[in-house]
Amino acid sequence: MTEKAFQDYYPDQLAHCYGCGKLNEQGLQIKSYWDGEEAVCTYTPRPYHTAIPGYVYGGLIASLIDCHATGTAAAAAYKAAGRAMDTNPPFRFLTASLKVDYLRPTPIDGALELRAQVKEIKGRKVVVSVTLSAKGEVCAKGEVVTVQMPDHLLSD
Amino acid sequence: MTEKAFQDYYPDQLAHCYGCGKLNEQGLQIKSYWDGEEAVCTYTPRPYHTAIPGYVYGGLIASLIDCHATGTAAAAAYKAAGRAMDTNPPFRFLTASLKVDYLRPTPIDGALELRAQVKEIKGRKVVVSVTLSAKGEVCAKGEVVTVQMPDHLLSD
Repeated sequence: MTEKAFQDYYPDQLAHCYGCGKLNEQGLQIKSYWDGEEAVCTYTPRPYHTAIPGYVYGGLIASLIDCHATGTAAAAAYKAAGRAMDTNPPFRFLTASLKVDYLRPTPIDGALELRAQVKEIKGRKVVVSVTLSAKGEVCAKGEVVTVQMPDHLLSD
Repeated sequence: MTEKAFQDYYPDQLAHCYGCGKLNEQGLQIKSYWDGEEAVCTYTPRPYHTAIPGYVYGGLIASLIDCHATGTAAAAAYKAAGRAMDTNPPFRFLTASLKVDYLRPTPIDGALELRAQVKEIKGRKVVVSVTLSAKGEVCAKGEVVTVQMPDHLLSD
């Protein structure tokens, strides 16, 4: 894809997150994009992201759901405000709560597809639901309550 | 500590988890121990486990809570069965659902302490609640529903 991902718009001081920061060299560096009303992210687990051999460990799944949801929350906030993602001040969201249901073991030998839907935007809160699929089957579902980052953290 | 951690009893074929497997060289290799009725785990985040500079990213917190809870579930199952942890067949638990409430930003410059309590043991299910503290303050709370691993996964 040639379009910029949500995470590519994060200002540099907010681009160090292990899950989604483009400046975190050791991190996952996930990328999220709009696909109609949903936001999509594709991530291929590394061989060491294993739970039991052959399957993805749950912490990676939680991490992907978390960061894809906060990215989607930011993108949705720009959209709701009628603003382009390269305008200031930046929207960035923190996770208030994360719930993941692991429906079946997630095979590690292939790409994972995350699809996020915005369930609610209210004040500084955005609620996002996410599915994570492998080989066309939904393996985990998440619900993430995100809150807009306080200004004092944004300006640090 | 000289006592063996819960995770040190995992049989080799189940010791590859990124969060808690002693054989996963790239992983977190967490260690959990009984402290009375609670299970405790101490983990020092690496500098790249950042969310925004100075704070731990939520995916690591979810991963630590998850793996500390499944380890605690296994230890609790041995205790409930009146068995030592080095006896066969091994108890190992998968996560069915994970809920994390992030109460405040978690500072990255120091050790994190996780304390787990077993809330319920029923059939193949063990429910574990976990607090994660930094500098003496609880920064996140988790509740993890774990289920005993099916035999066909244990024997692979």
